[in-house]
Amino acid sequence: MGDVGIPREKILVAFFQDLAPDVLEELRAKFRGREVSSVTLKRGEAIPSDLAQQASYIVTFTNLPDPEDAQNIKLIHFLSAGLDHSIHHPIFKETSIPLTSSSGVHGPPIAEWTVMNWLVASRKFAFTYESQKKHEWGDGVSSQLQGIHDQVGKKLGILGYGSIGRQIGRVAQALGMTVHAYTASPRPTPSSRHDNGYIVPGTGDKEGTVPASWHHGTDKASIHEFLSLGLDHLVISLPLTPQTTHLLGAEEFEILAASVRPKHAKPYLTNISRGKVLNQNALIEALRSGQLSGAALDVADPEPLPAEHPLWEAPNVQISPHVSSLGVEYFPRSLDIVRENVGRIERGENLLNEYKRGKGY
Amino acid sequence: MGDVGIPREKILVAFFQDLAPDVLEELRAKFRGREVSSVTLKRGEAIPSDLAQQASYIVTFTNLPDPEDAQNIKLIHFLSAGLDHSIHHPIFKETSIPLTSSSGVHGPPIAEWTVMNWLVASRKFAFTYESQKKHEWGDGVSSQLQGIHDQVGKKLGILGYGSIGRQIGRVAQALGMTVHAYTASPRPTPSSRHDNGYIVPGTGDKEGTVPASWHHGTDKASIHEFLSLGLDHLVISLPLTPQTTHLLGAEEFEILAASVRPKHAKPYLTNISRGKVLNQNALIEALRSGQLSGAALDVADPEPLPAEHPLWEAPNVQISPHVSSLGVEYFPRSLDIVRENVGRIERGENLLNEYKRGKGY
Repeated sequence: MGDVGIPREKILVAFFQDLAPDVLEELRAKFRGREVSSVTLKRGEAIPSDLAQQASYIVTFTNLPDPEDAQNIKLIHFLSAGLDHSIHHPIFKETSIPLTSSSGVHGPPIAEWTVMNWLVASRKFAFTYESQKKHEWGDGVSSQLQGIHDQVGKKLGILGYGSIGRQIGRVAQALGMTVHAYTASPRPTPSSRHDNGYIVPGTGDKEGTVPASWHHGTDKASIHEFLSLGLDHLVISLPLTPQTTHLLGAEEFEILAASVRPKHAKPYLTNISRGKVLNQNALIEALRSGQLSGAALDVADPEPLPAEHPLWEAPNVQISPHVSSLGVEYFPRSLDIVRENVGRIERGENLLNEYKRGKGY
Repeated sequence: MGDVGIPREKILVAFFQDLAPDVLEELRAKFRGREVSSVTLKRGEAIPSDLAQQASYIVTFTNLPDPEDAQNIKLIHFLSAGLDHSIHHPIFKETSIPLTSSSGVHGPPIAEWTVMNWLVASRKFAFTYESQKKHEWGDGVSSQLQGIHDQVGKKLGILGYGSIGRQIGRVAQALGMTVHAYTASPRPTPSSRHDNGYIVPGTGDKEGTVPASWHHGTDKASIHEFLSLGLDHLVISLPLTPQTTHLLGAEEFEILAASVRPKHAKPYLTNISRGKVLNQNALIEALRSGQLSGAALDVADPEPLPAEHPLWEAPNVQISPHVSSLGVEYFPRSLDIVRENVGRIERGENLLNEYKRGKGY
């Protein structure tokens, strides 16, 4: 009513497939008073000039405008958690348009994937699953179910304590586990331990109070010290960089296995990062030799993992095809970040999840 | 040294199989200064007179002494969570020997079983499990994985907020869920919401601060009101009594399904109580009609469930053979209760998990 005559700001969503009607409806509900439209483009294709010139806000995975068409754009929001796939685009170097990521939206689904895999392994779910298929009740104290144990009192080490690691830590603590965090840079003060990015409401560890101890470093000696804590679980939740490529290999698995507490099972490894963060042949060997009691892997090297690859048959391995972040909540949560930032721009506040040009990843 | 000549108090463990050497070793470590011995007896068999007469403490599942042999016994501890299987034994009626249960030891394993089943269902684990068996990486955005969702913001109703329900609530809250508790008797004050029994350290909800709302009652109207909260998950964690037999049937599943929030999946049911708490035919019907989106059942009616029973093939059902409480931690935790109570007897304090004669279950 009051804003008749004032041109409404436009939000343009560039996506690689048509948006479902209910998603568009949800978008319009989230951004009342603004015009929401979408365009379907191939991955990496440029946003057409006329659309880019009219937009105030762009929401995208891989489609960006030419800097010349970007005069009106107040914000470009990426639907991905990282922006590394686009950092060589001229929008990054030739403009100062604020760029934001969807970092933080992955916490809950990947934490759920992680905990599910731990419990499937420790509670021998496959046995009851297969029994059900055969309509076999079986015997509750079957020898097949000997050795079932729970997570209370287990020590969890998280390599990379970002939004994903924090939600894993939160759930692990509720299960009765002790959490040990590892970050690249030191976190000596309470405020340095805060998570300042987007956090899915009701989840995470914003204040960084979950870990019983914090560790840091980028050198091998620091990593080795962390792996010597006597961990029952090691979760790899690091970005893949030249420094983290093949960070874990035969030596690291040996250190991990050697420090486990008496009477405890050997360590269980969870990789939700990238396949290349570890030496996969060394992992297979550590599973075969029993240095590791098992592994949950949502990533592999290469992907897709070829059918004849020996990793498929390594002992006690659970593999999924890079699906741990999937979920119907992904899109709405990412748009919540946009909505928050539209408000912050109006109020002149610092943005959530803003990419710092020149700082790299 | 100092107690040479003073006869050491004896702890007798009566069990249906020989104790493993490491269990006996652990027992002796827990009870230094006392003599620990064990006897292997058939289920329900009486403890031999000479052994009973010498014992100060008895640890047992189903083996009890004759009251005439129980003059020296300061405590009988049951390895089971409930004592209902033994309450007609003369030890209950003719003596005032303190009797304690293992209530509380089941919290972590059953909570883990519950959460595992939720996540296996919501994240479609069976699909990736079957793919792995075939060495198929597949496609991360396969249509088979559409509809994956997480637990954030989901409403969980727990019928029976005891030690098991509390640990489920604790983990659910960490996952981002909202917890609603239902108990038979009202819990209007903070202290009435406390858990005063044994709690596995690092777990549970001792203060009763997890639930967003508390509900109570033993009549149908109260249950129906609870089922109308718009629950995404209903967990049945009640003891089986005449009052709770067939507590849930067609009418209750209809109420549950009707109150679910728009755009939410239909409710998911988890039964870790006893099969007879619900009308199993009505459950099968509710799964077939889609009133329920799925069910995780560790119990059935009857057990073992016959191979030809239609429950095995009800849509989206996950069945396990009454194994949710299994775990290597069971025995040590139960003995922690004994150790605590031995100390309390010495100090003249109230016992943990003491059975109140005359109060029934």
